Amino acid sequence: MTQLLLNADVGESLGAWTMGNDPALVPLLDLANIACGFHASDQDIMRSTVQLAIRHGVRIGAHPAYPDLIGFGRRSMACTPEQVENLVLYQIGALAAMCRAEGASLSYVKPHGALYNDMARDHRLLAAVMRGVRAFDPALIVVVPATPDPEPTQALAQDHGLAVWFEAFADRAYHLDGRLVARTRDGAVHHDQTVIVDQAMRFAEGRSIQSVDGQPLTLKADTLCVHGDNEASIAAARAIRAALGQRTAQP
Amino acid sequence: MTQLLLNADVGESLGAWTMGNDPALVPLLDLANIACGFHASDQDIMRSTVQLAIRHGVRIGAHPAYPDLIGFGRRSMACTPEQVENLVLYQIGALAAMCRAEGASLSYVKPHGALYNDMARDHRLLAAVMRGVRAFDPALIVVVPATPDPEPTQALAQDHGLAVWFEAFADRAYHLDGRLVARTRDGAVHHDQTVIVDQAMRFAEGRSIQSVDGQPLTLKADTLCVHGDNEASIAAARAIRAALGQRTAQP
Amino acid sequence: MTQLLLNADVGESLGAWTMGNDPALVPLLDLANIACGFHASDQDIMRSTVQLAIRHGVRIGAHPAYPDLIGFGRRSMACTPEQVENLVLYQIGALAAMCRAEGASLSYVKPHGALYNDMARDHRLLAAVMRGVRAFDPALIVVVPATPDPEPTQALAQDHGLAVWFEAFADRAYHLDGRLVARTRDGAVHHDQTVIVDQAMRFAEGRSIQSVDGQPLTLKADTLCVHGDNEASIAAARAIRAALGQRTAQP
Amino acid sequence: MTQLLLNADVGESLGAWTMGNDPALVPLLDLANIACGFHASDQDIMRSTVQLAIRHGVRIGAHPAYPDLIGFGRRSMACTPEQVENLVLYQIGALAAMCRAEGASLSYVKPHGALYNDMARDHRLLAAVMRGVRAFDPALIVVVPATPDPEPTQALAQDHGLAVWFEAFADRAYHLDGRLVARTRDGAVHHDQTVIVDQAMRFAEGRSIQSVDGQPLTLKADTLCVHGDNEASIAAARAIRAALGQRTAQP
Repeated sequence: MTQLLLNADVGESLGAWTMGNDPALVPLLDLANIACGFHASDQDIMRSTVQLAIRHGVRIGAHPAYPDLIGFGRRSMACTPEQVENLVLYQIGALAAMCRAEGASLSYVKPHGALYNDMARDHRLLAAVMRGVRAFDPALIVVVPATPDPEPTQALAQDHGLAVWFEAFADRAYHLDGRLVARTRDGAVHHDQTVIVDQAMRFAEGRSIQSVDGQPLTLKADTLCVHGDNEASIAAARAIRAALGQRTAQP
Repeated sequence: MTQLLLNADVGESLGAWTMGNDPALVPLLDLANIACGFHASDQDIMRSTVQLAIRHGVRIGAHPAYPDLIGFGRRSMACTPEQVENLVLYQIGALAAMCRAEGASLSYVKPHGALYNDMARDHRLLAAVMRGVRAFDPALIVVVPATPDPEPTQALAQDHGLAVWFEAFADRAYHLDGRLVARTRDGAVHHDQTVIVDQAMRFAEGRSIQSVDGQPLTLKADTLCVHGDNEASIAAARAIRAALGQRTAQP
Repeated sequence: MTQLLLNADVGESLGAWTMGNDPALVPLLDLANIACGFHASDQDIMRSTVQLAIRHGVRIGAHPAYPDLIGFGRRSMACTPEQVENLVLYQIGALAAMCRAEGASLSYVKPHGALYNDMARDHRLLAAVMRGVRAFDPALIVVVPATPDPEPTQALAQDHGLAVWFEAFADRAYHLDGRLVARTRDGAVHHDQTVIVDQAMRFAEGRSIQSVDGQPLTLKADTLCVHGDNEASIAAARAIRAALGQRTAQP
Repeated sequence: MTQLLLNADVGESLGAWTMGNDPALVPLLDLANIACGFHASDQDIMRSTVQLAIRHGVRIGAHPAYPDLIGFGRRSMACTPEQVENLVLYQIGALAAMCRAEGASLSYVKPHGALYNDMARDHRLLAAVMRGVRAFDPALIVVVPATPDPEPTQALAQDHGLAVWFEAFADRAYHLDGRLVARTRDGAVHHDQTVIVDQAMRFAEGRSIQSVDGQPLTLKADTLCVHGDNEASIAAARAIRAALGQRTAQP
């Protein structure tokens, strides 16, 4: 069967505010991207989310972001590469401490929101992320967007002595060049669960999807991002989990 | 010769704001208490301060605080013990990552400002600090205020499998019960360098100081706190360093 | 009929996080306590909450707090009276600007959470709040907890040239001295809607309630606090609104 | 004599951190741009800076910024126009409250750092700033960069019922198109006081300066920005003040 790993952004509550339904979502995942306090979460939520992931045998990744609670890390900030390197390193360290306190360890790093998009567009920022990751632990894997042209990203990772996982989305339409269709455009987000599961299985089996430009697009994907913000997204995650089969065994 | 270790709070600049004169102060120290971003510092300053400490062979400690930049961590906040445990753990982890990136490691933890004072008064908070430290690494030493009655603190540390260092101040007057005289009171802070060096040597040699209550006070001290906020305090630190003799060899 | 005014804390969402159900709650209110960005809310939410209050003819009050998003303003902070005065003034000004942009104006100020509790206990802080309010506009009314001994509070308000509204809670048990029973204690919060409405009507009609100490307690109340965090609290607010009768006419 | 108004960014300390030398600088100014807590300052510093400006008869302007203390408001953030409008409005309101408490009022608004640069490049953001200003008070003047092509800016201001002041810099080299030469380039910042005063007088008298592109550049300027971060900049401000003559009389 397939090795496509299911990941989701979790631990994104903040103080008195709740976001998503982590207790329902985490058991479905292979990979839990845990917020580190810059775009969401606080120290208590980080720790309890690490506990939740451990309880369900889900591998833990750091989900570092620009320092922007109000904007939920979704607004680009003109940080220098050096600032990006250090804010990634800081957030990894903070979450790793929570893992260490619970007898677990980090497996990977997936930058969040605007930082994720910015590093995909600008390899000086991706290199900065990679320096931050490598400085902490070169065994950590970096999650990057799947792309029809993975060579430059893989080369950069190799230069840094790191491995990457390419990430795809089951509920989003793609351009032929591998970019996601902007959410503001009609048809950018799939709401039909059948469509979503079909797209997930296409990624899992290495088959092409249909791009919005009308041509087939094949994307090598190591991991698939699912969501837990509402009932529908959790139902979709459950359906994808069922279609993909059992979770991979944990180390 | 003496083993009294000199420590100071460093890395307390923030973004565009500079505080203190770390390049002048750090070479005089045995122990550099480095701010972790909650009361002062940012990721870039944390990393460059770690580099500075390493360059001068100074042992590095985490200096965690309440989350209060505007109040510089000097305002008590009614955090629960669980919150204290987790904010200590978070900040240790973040600074440890900076150390790891530079090939160094943490030696100890000294809570800052109001958190330091609050834990000295309330052993539920001290226990919370100790849980946060132990969860990261039981080899880390916790810095606590010197006191004429060190037994309860030592017992608590032992319960947590931790060692403590008792800290004294050369430039502050003491009450007979070991509390510092409040800064608002006349004579609370020594400005005469001869007096300061004399008090330092008394701690170093295990001799008593004169308390403001008129009685002699003997405090067992493992480390002495010096300051670098202005020329006078750096001159005092230099004089204490000279009087104590060479810095201890680093591992 | 009665003049007891219904108030609630609203506009307590933050960026991507939603709290409460303001669209359902606001139409039931006489007074909307709008968060000012220190314990909750951001500039966009403040403005849209002001618009919501205006749309329903609800009077607007500033709801200033300690600067503590993670703690939701519920943790006491050792701010000086001068700091309290200025943080109240700052937050009033910010919300007043939102009102002005929408052609409305502020009617009152109700401090939030730990600041509210601290000022009730410590009249130096209450005086600081009053200085902040008066500096902006002496026509603003200050909301304070109802107490069996309102004299000192009224005297302080008079000294500052301000009026106060005393606030009571329909869903909370009281001690005989007028303090709320701590939430951690059994029976501290009423969940039975009949009990809640009965307590509301007792305040509205100037009748006594039963304190947990077994004695009747009579509290003069100008306003009653209701909640909108869940379905039950909105249902209770609706029942109280119905029992009290129509909202007071707006200026 | 000339009407060129001297302005400077002041009140940019934060909590325990000091920036610049406001007591030396403010008496030289016509206009004090006071930080509002988003890139610098806190409530206490805002109030004391307002007091300082009043004491010296200096007109007060709000100096709003992106919410970025660590980056000192110098990093562009991808805020929407609506977010910009509301963050400008919030900050104006907060500072206006401080003025009101001291019996003064705001005269103008000068956005700070990256927000200033971004609005100059993108008139959707400039329009958003103008909506925020107008919503508070259409009598407030908006400070914008001087440009050889002021028409579009003036037209936009007129559409919003606002007046603008064009701002020039005496210590910065200019491109022929009116943009400042990037600080990273050699010769971008003038350090010679004679050169600085000469450039100031050229703006004051409507004469051209030499652009780095070798051609003369004439910029209509209503106000000139000076600095107070170090001794040299305050000396330069003093020399410019002397050359321009007495400060304009205050209302």
